[in-house]
Amino acid sequence: MDSAEELLRKTLAEKLTLIESQGNVVRDLKSSSAIKTLNSLKLEKSSIEQQLLASSDGSSVGGVNKEVFRKNLVNTLERRLFYIPSFKIYSGVAGLYDYGPPGCAVKSNVLAFWRQHFVLEENMLEVDCPCVTPEVVLKASGHVEKFTDLMVKDEKTGTCYRADHLLKDFCKEKLEKDLSLSIEKVQELKHDLAMLDDFSPEQLGSKIKEYGIVAPDTKNPLSDPYPFNLMFQTSIGPSGMIPGYMRPETAQGIFVNFKDLYYYNGSKLPFAAAQIGQAFRNEISPRQGLLRVREFTLAEIEHFVDPEDKSHPKYSEVVDLEFLMFPRDEQMTGKDAVKLRLGDAVSNGTVNNETLGYFIGRVYLFLTRLGISKERLRFRQHLANEMAHYAADCWDAEIECSYGWIECVGIADRSAYDLRAHSEKSGTPLVAHEKFSVPKEVEKLVITPVKKELGLAFKGNQKKIVEALEAMDEKEAMEVKAALESKGEVEFQVCTLGKAVTIKSNMISISKEIKKEHQRVFTPSVIEPSFGIGRIIYCLFEHSFYTRPSKAGDEQLNVFSFPPVVAPIKCTVFPLVQNPEYEAVAKQISKSLTAAGISHRIDITGTSIGKRYARTDELGVPFAITVDTTTTVTIRERDSKDQIRVEIEKVASVVRDVTDGVRTWADIQWEYPSHSSMSTADE
Amino acid sequence: MDSAEELLRKTLAEKLTLIESQGNVVRDLKSSSAIKTLNSLKLEKSSIEQQLLASSDGSSVGGVNKEVFRKNLVNTLERRLFYIPSFKIYSGVAGLYDYGPPGCAVKSNVLAFWRQHFVLEENMLEVDCPCVTPEVVLKASGHVEKFTDLMVKDEKTGTCYRADHLLKDFCKEKLEKDLSLSIEKVQELKHDLAMLDDFSPEQLGSKIKEYGIVAPDTKNPLSDPYPFNLMFQTSIGPSGMIPGYMRPETAQGIFVNFKDLYYYNGSKLPFAAAQIGQAFRNEISPRQGLLRVREFTLAEIEHFVDPEDKSHPKYSEVVDLEFLMFPRDEQMTGKDAVKLRLGDAVSNGTVNNETLGYFIGRVYLFLTRLGISKERLRFRQHLANEMAHYAADCWDAEIECSYGWIECVGIADRSAYDLRAHSEKSGTPLVAHEKFSVPKEVEKLVITPVKKELGLAFKGNQKKIVEALEAMDEKEAMEVKAALESKGEVEFQVCTLGKAVTIKSNMISISKEIKKEHQRVFTPSVIEPSFGIGRIIYCLFEHSFYTRPSKAGDEQLNVFSFPPVVAPIKCTVFPLVQNPEYEAVAKQISKSLTAAGISHRIDITGTSIGKRYARTDELGVPFAITVDTTTTVTIRERDSKDQIRVEIEKVASVVRDVTDGVRTWADIQWEYPSHSSMSTADE
Repeated sequence: MDSAEELLRKTLAEKLTLIESQGNVVRDLKSSSAIKTLNSLKLEKSSIEQQLLASSDGSSVGGVNKEVFRKNLVNTLERRLFYIPSFKIYSGVAGLYDYGPPGCAVKSNVLAFWRQHFVLEENMLEVDCPCVTPEVVLKASGHVEKFTDLMVKDEKTGTCYRADHLLKDFCKEKLEKDLSLSIEKVQELKHDLAMLDDFSPEQLGSKIKEYGIVAPDTKNPLSDPYPFNLMFQTSIGPSGMIPGYMRPETAQGIFVNFKDLYYYNGSKLPFAAAQIGQAFRNEISPRQGLLRVREFTLAEIEHFVDPEDKSHPKYSEVVDLEFLMFPRDEQMTGKDAVKLRLGDAVSNGTVNNETLGYFIGRVYLFLTRLGISKERLRFRQHLANEMAHYAADCWDAEIECSYGWIECVGIADRSAYDLRAHSEKSGTPLVAHEKFSVPKEVEKLVITPVKKELGLAFKGNQKKIVEALEAMDEKEAMEVKAALESKGEVEFQVCTLGKAVTIKSNMISISKEIKKEHQRVFTPSVIEPSFGIGRIIYCLFEHSFYTRPSKAGDEQLNVFSFPPVVAPIKCTVFPLVQNPEYEAVAKQISKSLTAAGISHRIDITGTSIGKRYARTDELGVPFAITVDTTTTVTIRERDSKDQIRVEIEKVASVVRDVTDGVRTWADIQWEYPSHSSMSTADE
Repeated sequence: MDSAEELLRKTLAEKLTLIESQGNVVRDLKSSSAIKTLNSLKLEKSSIEQQLLASSDGSSVGGVNKEVFRKNLVNTLERRLFYIPSFKIYSGVAGLYDYGPPGCAVKSNVLAFWRQHFVLEENMLEVDCPCVTPEVVLKASGHVEKFTDLMVKDEKTGTCYRADHLLKDFCKEKLEKDLSLSIEKVQELKHDLAMLDDFSPEQLGSKIKEYGIVAPDTKNPLSDPYPFNLMFQTSIGPSGMIPGYMRPETAQGIFVNFKDLYYYNGSKLPFAAAQIGQAFRNEISPRQGLLRVREFTLAEIEHFVDPEDKSHPKYSEVVDLEFLMFPRDEQMTGKDAVKLRLGDAVSNGTVNNETLGYFIGRVYLFLTRLGISKERLRFRQHLANEMAHYAADCWDAEIECSYGWIECVGIADRSAYDLRAHSEKSGTPLVAHEKFSVPKEVEKLVITPVKKELGLAFKGNQKKIVEALEAMDEKEAMEVKAALESKGEVEFQVCTLGKAVTIKSNMISISKEIKKEHQRVFTPSVIEPSFGIGRIIYCLFEHSFYTRPSKAGDEQLNVFSFPPVVAPIKCTVFPLVQNPEYEAVAKQISKSLTAAGISHRIDITGTSIGKRYARTDELGVPFAITVDTTTTVTIRERDSKDQIRVEIEKVASVVRDVTDGVRTWADIQWEYPSHSSMSTADE
């Protein structure tokens, strides 16, 4: 709780006390001056309440009302078919969305850029595995047992809710709306919010009972919380005997192929494998639009590395990047994210190792080049209680949007956990080998029981005594050896016989020998950057969306400021006026754009040029080509509205250069004459 | 049955008769000359049998043994990780495969080219819908009821088999191996094979009984055939109350969005929507490797068109294409596929309409540009019994591979079926409007019951009489009108009353009026090209694969002759010999290739240049760059093994031009000096 809020709450508590006592005075005296004082106090109270409301839901930050912003954005996205609730004509299904034409184009551009930025740049081994997965694989990974959320049921209607969401909503609503809360109660509710992920079913159940939380729709009582597995279950083959699931992540497909991929890579580490594909989570009650859905596209990288050497050959390329990081310590001490130089964060141990640091840097470059705002992107380190016990370190790329800070990319050093789990379950060793150029000499303990002598001495007990002797650890063996050398015999406890026996020096030889080893066999660590493509795209929509007044000033026009690399359509072509000659030129340009592989739209409707620009801006099209002569045309840049004049034959190559990132708009503006929009009826 | 085979069978039957009678002679006479004759007859018989075997399984066609070819191909594909049986370390799951690195790259190249060739070229509206689909959608489409295969169970072990596959195997094996079959029996078995898809469960069951077919693994008796739904079933949400399936095709996602897409397209026809995505079919017993799998990538186009105008604006671009077509008539009369000019096939009505013809042409261009052999590609028209009742015409692009002719693309005119089905089920009209520029005058029948008079005359029966009057068709109404005008009254049968009533001329007015209509409302037809991407890729592997002797002539080397557009890796870079200077050049070239977006591999192992070329040929890499000086390098083309010498700075742009298809290898050979491979130790 920040100090401003604390102060407001204190002041409010004081005012309420004053109002109460002043009310008593009024009731006692019924004097008109007392009523005046009461009314003025009430006015002050209401003003403080409004301030408090605004500070609690954060909606006043930056002067923009988040709800209004989101409503306008979502309306635009749905109207222009960036996305569509799936199966809408059948009333839809919660948590399932279609990408319509512009959304689908943005998505395939994001994926193409991901392939270029990660797979091609790092020579990763991309694979493509099925979504249908047999149970044995997801038992090994732990998903069958642990991939659950806690659920409660309306005891009368059977409607299901996520238990932690109900508690979260209750706490948030209390904090926002109940202004009479004591500071202690505020602290308790905030503590509950922070602990949500850690509550056991019993703790969550008792909180729900304690706060009297009921089913939101019916006000009926709720069942105790119980775990619900989030995987979509199915059955493979006609017999119904092979249980399967729709994969909840793509990573397992890579892990089970480790042996082949390692061999494909020439049995060398490090190397990375990558996969883009659908993943499925049967959310209990999906909310937050595109951010929490039941089917989504993941892009995952598994970078396999020697646990004893987590350096990265290209680490030097990212050391000087500076961006917002939110290390564990800052979070625990209630501080904000801080701008850090990546190289410093790695060298002072904030980030566990170079390879993890390298991927954090690459993710930062990926997201910002896509169009995510640098100021609204931070890398948050997992707290100790958030991480699995085996993880060495985890950082989430969080992007701020109207729903708050949203985890969009997870970057985790999962150590050897996954490969070990599948090695054990499948019986196939998923290991790497380091061949020594010179064999290494290793001192090894050698215990050799002399079975003949032991047999003569102990007959039927021989076997158990041999086993016990061979199982000695180094310390014990050295003690036995010393005793035998000094006394010639030793009392030796054999647990399986439940007694001690006397071992003589002719019954055993114990020595340390130097052995040659030719290789080291080990399970590689895996560093996993995992991208929620749909979440990144939604945040990109939020960061790209703005409004500006029309030329006449009578309405606000929507614009998506997508960088060319992700823009769904790279340019539109339209004749300035309806005219067969201009139309022919427009079609000729369209043909040359298709040949150059540039997605575009041609608009030969008679709509005013201003309306056509507005339409194109609302789809985030970066360039508009207007045919106003039969030799040259104008190219208009979306955000600046600047225009240049270009010869018809050069249009396609100019647009390709600037959308491929070979040249910038500034380069092109410098080369071609600018065109004043005064002559065209621009908006 | 071709005439050569018929002749062989006749000769064989004659020989068998001769052998039998000669055997009798031998037994009777035990004369040595008779034994000689018998032995020589037996030799002749065995030679004819061998000829017959070869002609039946077709393995001798072109002198290549198909089984041997496929074994070598599949071995190469698995060894180089083009694909991997999924979850191999857990013994795999039938019908599920992973694409390993080179296979995954081929797949994403095929999809990128598909997007360029269809979506971009035709300005299609691409969408991306979820795989998880609620039952209601698949009930409307008919999949819940009809998407089944007939299954039989081993009555003792419960193992499941596809009933038609067992019958097919039986018939094929009989035809291939049982040389004593009469011509009549051969005809019957061939008829069974042709009718497989049309047999009812009862017919299939009686055939299985008649032929005594048993479970192939155990020889146990089989159950009667019964339908098994091929969709993977699941349940959406936590309550278990929303049944769902993994989609068996991507098309439904487009149909349910028709209304929005039509609006997005400016309420204009024709337009096409497209979708690439996973589809799922829970095959009973998958066989044929990558050709029949349980999860696969589909690329589907739904081209919506006015049923009264199926012309296509770009039809003229494909009319002159000539390729193998296999119309219904040729199939029914036992002829082979014929080479036809597409324009002729459309104009003589063999292909139903221009749009269907346009897509057949575009599919031909797509497949052959990918590398599918023109001689092993044909377009086969569906027979009347193969098509759904609503379909106007269907053609399959079939590609010949070692498994026979495989359906890889279906191109169907499905008329208005799908949109109508979803309109009815959802209650949302999925229709298009044709606005008339000038309103059309239409003569319409107007029946106006005079309710007051009818009420007076018929009291409580009035409502039913009004309904019956209003429901009259034009002919009946005109008869009533004529009778009223001549006689003043008429006997009128009211079914719902079960009697006739007397209608007088003051009780009704009947007239024909001219009405103005401003638009025509209709359900568009849909033409659907649907691509099985995995099947296309497998056939491409077969058509691209060849072997050639190594330079030493001591072994056969494998080559994939992928065109650059689909090659998984565009080029490899290697120093001729291990040397820090050459290595630096190789790394510099690698960097420039990455910047140009060209996938490549660098190989600095000390392996011989010949071995490195062989390795790269086996992955289908079209170009190999060898660093043998610090100023220029050689570029070697895979199939011709020709080499040219190019300056280091130009390498990336040369490779980009030739892989993008901007220039051909011949263009480049003309521009740069050729390099004799004599100096390098080429294979």
